[in-house]
Amino acid sequence: MWRPDRADKTPLYQQIVDHIERRISYAELPPGSALPSERKLAEQLGVNRSTVIQAYEELRASGLVESIVGSGTRVSRTKWGIAPSHTPNWRQYTEGGTFLPNLPLMRRIREATSNNSSIINLASGELSSDLFPNDIVHSLLREQNFNEHLGYDDPQGFHPLRKSLVSSLKQYNGIHTTESSILITSGSQQSLYLITQCLLSPGDAVAVEDPSYCYSLPMFQSAGLRIFRLPVHHDGIEPDDMIRLYRQHRIRMVFLNPNYQNPTGAILSESKRKRLLEAAALLRIPIVEDDPFSLTAFSGAVPPPLKAMDTDGIVLYIGSLSKIAASGLRIGWMIAPQSVIGRLSDARQQMDFGLSIIPQWVAEQLLASGRFDDHIARLRRALDQRQEIMVQSLSDILQNKVAFSPPQGGLNIWCKINRPVDDSKLLEESIRRGVVFVPGSVYGSEPGFIRFSYAKPRLEDIPAGIAAFNQALGMM
Amino acid sequence: MWRPDRADKTPLYQQIVDHIERRISYAELPPGSALPSERKLAEQLGVNRSTVIQAYEELRASGLVESIVGSGTRVSRTKWGIAPSHTPNWRQYTEGGTFLPNLPLMRRIREATSNNSSIINLASGELSSDLFPNDIVHSLLREQNFNEHLGYDDPQGFHPLRKSLVSSLKQYNGIHTTESSILITSGSQQSLYLITQCLLSPGDAVAVEDPSYCYSLPMFQSAGLRIFRLPVHHDGIEPDDMIRLYRQHRIRMVFLNPNYQNPTGAILSESKRKRLLEAAALLRIPIVEDDPFSLTAFSGAVPPPLKAMDTDGIVLYIGSLSKIAASGLRIGWMIAPQSVIGRLSDARQQMDFGLSIIPQWVAEQLLASGRFDDHIARLRRALDQRQEIMVQSLSDILQNKVAFSPPQGGLNIWCKINRPVDDSKLLEESIRRGVVFVPGSVYGSEPGFIRFSYAKPRLEDIPAGIAAFNQALGMM
Repeated sequence: MWRPDRADKTPLYQQIVDHIERRISYAELPPGSALPSERKLAEQLGVNRSTVIQAYEELRASGLVESIVGSGTRVSRTKWGIAPSHTPNWRQYTEGGTFLPNLPLMRRIREATSNNSSIINLASGELSSDLFPNDIVHSLLREQNFNEHLGYDDPQGFHPLRKSLVSSLKQYNGIHTTESSILITSGSQQSLYLITQCLLSPGDAVAVEDPSYCYSLPMFQSAGLRIFRLPVHHDGIEPDDMIRLYRQHRIRMVFLNPNYQNPTGAILSESKRKRLLEAAALLRIPIVEDDPFSLTAFSGAVPPPLKAMDTDGIVLYIGSLSKIAASGLRIGWMIAPQSVIGRLSDARQQMDFGLSIIPQWVAEQLLASGRFDDHIARLRRALDQRQEIMVQSLSDILQNKVAFSPPQGGLNIWCKINRPVDDSKLLEESIRRGVVFVPGSVYGSEPGFIRFSYAKPRLEDIPAGIAAFNQALGMM
Repeated sequence: MWRPDRADKTPLYQQIVDHIERRISYAELPPGSALPSERKLAEQLGVNRSTVIQAYEELRASGLVESIVGSGTRVSRTKWGIAPSHTPNWRQYTEGGTFLPNLPLMRRIREATSNNSSIINLASGELSSDLFPNDIVHSLLREQNFNEHLGYDDPQGFHPLRKSLVSSLKQYNGIHTTESSILITSGSQQSLYLITQCLLSPGDAVAVEDPSYCYSLPMFQSAGLRIFRLPVHHDGIEPDDMIRLYRQHRIRMVFLNPNYQNPTGAILSESKRKRLLEAAALLRIPIVEDDPFSLTAFSGAVPPPLKAMDTDGIVLYIGSLSKIAASGLRIGWMIAPQSVIGRLSDARQQMDFGLSIIPQWVAEQLLASGRFDDHIARLRRALDQRQEIMVQSLSDILQNKVAFSPPQGGLNIWCKINRPVDDSKLLEESIRRGVVFVPGSVYGSEPGFIRFSYAKPRLEDIPAGIAAFNQALGMM
């Protein structure tokens, strides 16, 4: 027989209410049926009579039962149909699940930008739409006669796209790979998601940069990973820190963004790269290299990725078109040993059955056309110019209130405010003045850091945005 | 101090080898350093001396240590660099992860079809490519001047597509909904994945049909759900069975495919629909209604979905273009209360940042063009014809060896073999003879059931496929 659970945090009387409500709901207690007397139920359940009295009062208040002097307590005949709410408790469902919601600050930023299209967006890491290869994509679709099969694709992705990537990765990044080592994904986000879901287990320790984009990804917490940090210096992380973390916590994977690191802009120095790869090989720890920005190198001298030096096959390389062409194509890729690619593409089939063939075909046409090179050259000039305007604004308007050192590529400037501030208060003040940025705490840094992105706003809005930020800072 | 773990299945000597190898790897024991004598280490670790001798032998064999008479055992000076394998143990990584791999039988079928393009495919639930609206899609891309923004899309999906769906769902399915209650997904697969990941928690009990497509989805097991079964009769499941499961196991969600159920082809009767919705409302259990096939109704009389009768908002409705237009578009949708849509679109952002705008635009153009109606009419005629050929072949060739009753829509015929057989052996014999099908056990049914799909093979291959199957059955 049912009894209330004293270990449960729900009050006893409420447990009794819920229990009786359920029994009524599934018609074990039809309308008009008698409930036991208060004294008798108290005995049956092993609770005080006052607890049952409270429960019955609650049930009477909801109209679910009625008490008539002389005839005890009965299930309502008249109000039965309306009494229990008929829709599922959706709040309970949406608060459940293993998948954690986004960080509140990120949600706040998204909310602010979607509710107000005139807000100056120094938060988004997305390119401004005039930097996309719009003309190329539109003319490809019109002129190149898309004529591909519309069925399920190869689980690893559209073969001609993987073939084009083999050439591009060699030409631009110095990576030598093969079609069978490439998995096409829905951008870097999905590559990271697949790695955390399929290659790691809850409780595994991993190392991420500090500060890091990865820190703000609830997917790491959702996967139950224990996250340890590798401080990022001007020349990147310290390989010895990785060794130390391995000794202390047996980290099973390291997540790095060695070129124009997000958010700091740092480039991992060449000597550190060598030591890092050696140490990771000895410890047999895979390195996940996220490399979204390297083609933006303003000078055109693209820093080679770790993967280009990876003779032992320990680097899982992640790239995408989102930061160098158009985020709305949703095209990314991963280079990994074939056993890994096989595992991840099998899992991906179960999640979404792979990508649509159409954007993959567009990406292939884009990379294979000579026009991609022109697009990248134009993008570099534009980003260089945008960064210059932002640097100028920061220097002119904020002067010595912030310190920063602009990287030679990427989309962001990482600023340290020269006094302590409350991150979320500063964000609210700024939103009120029409500008958003990403507070450093989103990347796990100590308070007082800001990531300003120059990829998205209109050129003329950059100084106005910094000026609005300056006013907000003045309120702190 | 470290000691081997006697509860571990790894032999003690191997644990000692691994431990020393790790210490060497991270340079706690540099090249040339002395290891303790066998006797001393045995004492320290509390193991027999013979165990240490075995471990040292193993380490010597790998070249990692060397023993010189009179000077004991030392870490190799010369071979140090080459000794431990430098690549991560990828097998260990790919076997980990919370995400379970596909069922072996499903992998076997995929392997058989991808290695042999001439195999007759009665397993795939995908349409033959001549049933896709190829001409419409190709001409849309050429003529309709795609000119959309290539940035990140609304997390709920391309707004014009949601708007077109509101009309289509009303016109074809009798569902009244709004754009804000729709989430665009990468097909039904992603809708189900989001529901299992975000609305349910490990340990939750759910009910699925028996047999059911869901049974073969490792995503249910990966999410840690406890799965209970609702037997499917010729007129669908029994609502009382759901009530019983709720009483016994407090099921938190029910997954149903009421129209042309996969794999049985059953249609849930109207009286059962009513009772089911009433009971689910009283118990406050959400119903997930997967409805991929209803537009295939050969007669054109599309059976209305549960969602069309759902006055309490308890049905999460899942649809897609995969089975009625083209799987390679990867376009599906979900209709749900807005709190649910909000939660799922937030999570989806973290998994893959949403769908590419291009296939969403194509889907919108397709639905909005008058030509979708012609396409569906053509598809119905073609499927009806294909089913007729299969029914004829089954009757002529297999005669009374199987029993089945063909549904009036969908892509499949569910057959019972009139004697017990070994599912996987029958599949292997069939693959050897050039035909694949899906054994019933993939859907959780008892042995001796087969799902034959008529959607994919060439018309003339259907009788040949059934004949090959008949031969295979003769070997059992």
